[in-house]
Amino acid sequence: MSATRYTYLGPEGTFTEAALRTLPEAATRELVPMVSVPAALDAVRSGEAAAALVPIENSVEGGITTTLDELVSGEPLMIYREVLLSIKFALLVRPGTTLADIKTVTAHPAAQPQVRNWLKANLPEALWESSASNADGARLVQEGRYDAAFAGEFAAATYGLEPLITDIHDAVNAQTRFVLVGRPARPAAPTGADKTSVVLWQREDHPGALLELLQEFSVRGVNLMLLQSRPTGQGIGNYCFAIDAEGHISERRVGEALMGLRRICPEVRFLGSYPRAEVTLDDVRALRAGTSDAEFVEAAEWLARCQDGRA
Amino acid sequence: MSATRYTYLGPEGTFTEAALRTLPEAATRELVPMVSVPAALDAVRSGEAAAALVPIENSVEGGITTTLDELVSGEPLMIYREVLLSIKFALLVRPGTTLADIKTVTAHPAAQPQVRNWLKANLPEALWESSASNADGARLVQEGRYDAAFAGEFAAATYGLEPLITDIHDAVNAQTRFVLVGRPARPAAPTGADKTSVVLWQREDHPGALLELLQEFSVRGVNLMLLQSRPTGQGIGNYCFAIDAEGHISERRVGEALMGLRRICPEVRFLGSYPRAEVTLDDVRALRAGTSDAEFVEAAEWLARCQDGRA
Amino acid sequence: MSATRYTYLGPEGTFTEAALRTLPEAATRELVPMVSVPAALDAVRSGEAAAALVPIENSVEGGITTTLDELVSGEPLMIYREVLLSIKFALLVRPGTTLADIKTVTAHPAAQPQVRNWLKANLPEALWESSASNADGARLVQEGRYDAAFAGEFAAATYGLEPLITDIHDAVNAQTRFVLVGRPARPAAPTGADKTSVVLWQREDHPGALLELLQEFSVRGVNLMLLQSRPTGQGIGNYCFAIDAEGHISERRVGEALMGLRRICPEVRFLGSYPRAEVTLDDVRALRAGTSDAEFVEAAEWLARCQDGRA
Amino acid sequence: MSATRYTYLGPEGTFTEAALRTLPEAATRELVPMVSVPAALDAVRSGEAAAALVPIENSVEGGITTTLDELVSGEPLMIYREVLLSIKFALLVRPGTTLADIKTVTAHPAAQPQVRNWLKANLPEALWESSASNADGARLVQEGRYDAAFAGEFAAATYGLEPLITDIHDAVNAQTRFVLVGRPARPAAPTGADKTSVVLWQREDHPGALLELLQEFSVRGVNLMLLQSRPTGQGIGNYCFAIDAEGHISERRVGEALMGLRRICPEVRFLGSYPRAEVTLDDVRALRAGTSDAEFVEAAEWLARCQDGRA
Repeated sequence: MSATRYTYLGPEGTFTEAALRTLPEAATRELVPMVSVPAALDAVRSGEAAAALVPIENSVEGGITTTLDELVSGEPLMIYREVLLSIKFALLVRPGTTLADIKTVTAHPAAQPQVRNWLKANLPEALWESSASNADGARLVQEGRYDAAFAGEFAAATYGLEPLITDIHDAVNAQTRFVLVGRPARPAAPTGADKTSVVLWQREDHPGALLELLQEFSVRGVNLMLLQSRPTGQGIGNYCFAIDAEGHISERRVGEALMGLRRICPEVRFLGSYPRAEVTLDDVRALRAGTSDAEFVEAAEWLARCQDGRA
Repeated sequence: MSATRYTYLGPEGTFTEAALRTLPEAATRELVPMVSVPAALDAVRSGEAAAALVPIENSVEGGITTTLDELVSGEPLMIYREVLLSIKFALLVRPGTTLADIKTVTAHPAAQPQVRNWLKANLPEALWESSASNADGARLVQEGRYDAAFAGEFAAATYGLEPLITDIHDAVNAQTRFVLVGRPARPAAPTGADKTSVVLWQREDHPGALLELLQEFSVRGVNLMLLQSRPTGQGIGNYCFAIDAEGHISERRVGEALMGLRRICPEVRFLGSYPRAEVTLDDVRALRAGTSDAEFVEAAEWLARCQDGRA
Repeated sequence: MSATRYTYLGPEGTFTEAALRTLPEAATRELVPMVSVPAALDAVRSGEAAAALVPIENSVEGGITTTLDELVSGEPLMIYREVLLSIKFALLVRPGTTLADIKTVTAHPAAQPQVRNWLKANLPEALWESSASNADGARLVQEGRYDAAFAGEFAAATYGLEPLITDIHDAVNAQTRFVLVGRPARPAAPTGADKTSVVLWQREDHPGALLELLQEFSVRGVNLMLLQSRPTGQGIGNYCFAIDAEGHISERRVGEALMGLRRICPEVRFLGSYPRAEVTLDDVRALRAGTSDAEFVEAAEWLARCQDGRA
Repeated sequence: MSATRYTYLGPEGTFTEAALRTLPEAATRELVPMVSVPAALDAVRSGEAAAALVPIENSVEGGITTTLDELVSGEPLMIYREVLLSIKFALLVRPGTTLADIKTVTAHPAAQPQVRNWLKANLPEALWESSASNADGARLVQEGRYDAAFAGEFAAATYGLEPLITDIHDAVNAQTRFVLVGRPARPAAPTGADKTSVVLWQREDHPGALLELLQEFSVRGVNLMLLQSRPTGQGIGNYCFAIDAEGHISERRVGEALMGLRRICPEVRFLGSYPRAEVTLDDVRALRAGTSDAEFVEAAEWLARCQDGRA
């Protein structure tokens, strides 16, 4: 049944599958690879799947625009979980192949910027050709069409290959962030280290408009973690903003900021409040004075007393 | 009984009494002049009077610091009404006196900047001496101690004087604003053109602190009408701010701004929400988009839907 | 010689070539198609070409990240011109082909979202396959591999095809913005309707940091036209901002804002000041009071007088 | 000659004279007491005196409005120095008088709030009458009109009195700030711990106007030390703002902020840059990153390089 089915950006053997398998509940779900992010999400929208795991941000390439655009438009979806995965490539070859044998290499185009320097240093003569996915590249090596494929080490077994070199990554800290997306429902309870995602549209293209949106967060001490502009499709220069902010919609400062945005934006799409995948010491900043839930409650009580003449 | 007694800054015959008599209910109250603003307000604090009318702002001299300081400190009081009075002086003399007879003039020191130019032009030789109040000056003219007194024309009858010249005022638009002060109680219902008075203390003397206080108003579209700094008595450079803002505490944008201030200020004193005495076309600005009560309610409903997964 | 050579994102027959040909000087330049944006720009960096025309923003797909990332990093380049092109597709076929004959269609993947609805309505049974560029798709139709290609109408002649249908575009106002990029040099003189592009890095990932950057613009009355975040390659959550602002670097308000940003950002990359391609009545906003060059000059003269004791 | 004459708010024996005598140059000047602040300043305006020392701020009473209004309007003057004086009263009596003998006390009205509690505790039965100045009160005690006067201990000798009690002050840290005012000239060179005084008028009474003025300071990292509103004389609700900011007009961040204000205000009056009288560890805040003169110079050089195509 759909409640037990999770789709993901396939095919099998990609980093997305590896990210999905880090979720404890994945062990008891039917995991179904899909050919594209829209296909994975449409299965959720139609009810065929309970949730979909898709990449949303890449530390080398930036926001995954296909995923962002799917969340920004169409029937609403919500994010329930995020997974951060370090991206390290293995050079997969047919058993017996040596570095000297490699004339052609393949992988998904997104892999290229992450292995370019390694290639230049170690296989300067090798010819690169793109494949539809890293897993598909591995399959093509298995079939003998290319000599080697860059892919996750975990993909080797699936295609009868072996990792000749592992841990290849040009950029330090190369990571991809994935999100588990479902149909709208009540967000999970706050954990104390959460994040809230929203999409904001501007009332009009007026000067200082973005500044006003950001002030709705800052005046309530809500820190922003990410801001990405996406075209609205209404012509050059018309953008909406996908924003990740610290905190959970059930926390008062976040709720009040969201209501403020709702009032000044023609449209706000709430994309979910969910636990942060990675919480470093640096990230856990003390709340700004005056922004805790207890202080919101105390202030509301004080206002009620003022309104009653008891302050 | 106290419920029918109103005190005011006396003596009889001052502009304060004139302002008080503009209030319809004054006709049915016992009006008691007091020797000072603190005396008038202490009678309210002790329960001997239901309310007191005192001057709070003068278009020539600025804030009346005695009144401000009384409201800022001590047992809390609240403002329920304001009265704006145009300040025009009459030159009061004993019957028969002509301009040529006048060698000495008197009035309260606050009157001097408002008649200085007139004196220079019309009575350049006259000697000025200050009296304790304009009414007291009139009394001293009655007693023969001075030849003429500057006071409100309405004071003439009380002291058996006659107005030799009327409508004297150096500054155009010379006005004084008076407030009717009582013990804290539920503010009157909003009229649609109200004002809210508060006193704010800063958490610490940190750079940008005042800016942060003002942003709590501006981000919610609440306009400021007046800001005055008053020393806290904790040494040079330590100030609190008496602020008049547009709107009523029962309006959502004002209430949210006050709660925001309550959270970031070590102390906020609510001084009342009351009808504005003067509403010019210029003053009745359209509410900024997104700050009406209806928009606050709609945004709160939207937030509840988001929290329930029904957005 | 290089001074007469312009590269562009090829191959021949794409929208980029069409955009390049709208520039008057294109008539006297050697126009060289390149296989990729990096290749087109590297020819400029190495001195083989004087300039390169590349797409930078698409009203449907958003920022062209390859172009942005090339401008953000590597050896500095500057923008000297922008071209806005309405994107309308023609369905190109071999002479004699009718709509009923078409079983397979092709084009660059970026074309798909712009013709999807048209396809669904008019050729619901046709099979879509992606090609490396719209021009390449046309070539493959010429070779008989596909029945029809979506491309610019201007591409028909090059490949011996004819436009069966023209003016196909799902989104109204579908446009692409192209920029002419060269090595750093003195920007062209201001025209009165210019735009300035910069890339900003944040000093640290501190709360409110983006707000501070935007305030450097807003306090000087400089309006923003576009803001795009790009990963710095230093890990998830580390972004720089590519910003287009109204005005020219030689205008005082823009210069002062840039200096302010230079002081608070660890790095600012100036990408050029150049004439705006499209200036609608809506865009030509009156300068905010106090931000004209004349007012800057007057204020500087006043400051000098104050410093000299002559104010 | 006028160059050697300093006026001050008299009479002799007041705190103002005591403050004046703390200035080293006072020893070589002719010190002339005047009957009022306007009189002391008019002597400067007319050239009869080189400078005048007048009180400007009192930690108990707040801004001295007479002084502020004189600086805000009329022929321009400039502040060259400030003096902070702790205000401690002595109870001056004729030799032989004991506490039990005292039935009447006198002093300037401004002294009353600073000795009120002491009086209530120590001389609850004594009758208070105001005198024109503390020194005048001492003179009246000498003449036998009152039994005791509150004044500075230094006033005792002048009037043949003796201090019965010293160090009387209700408020801790009771201080008065005095300023040395002269005709406009080049300000003294910066000392590294300076203060700049200005008066700002708002362009129109528009919402958020004060916020905009303060942002001109804050965006350049200039901290405010004092803000006082004064009526413009154009009717209730029309105010200008007297502001003290950290730093010296010759420092770039201050100069740029002043130019910004000059552009957006209909009038800015520069009242001087001068050394701060008191610099506590708390006051000497590190400059905000990016606001030192060196960083301004570097940014200007960078801008020039950008404009020349050499960045």
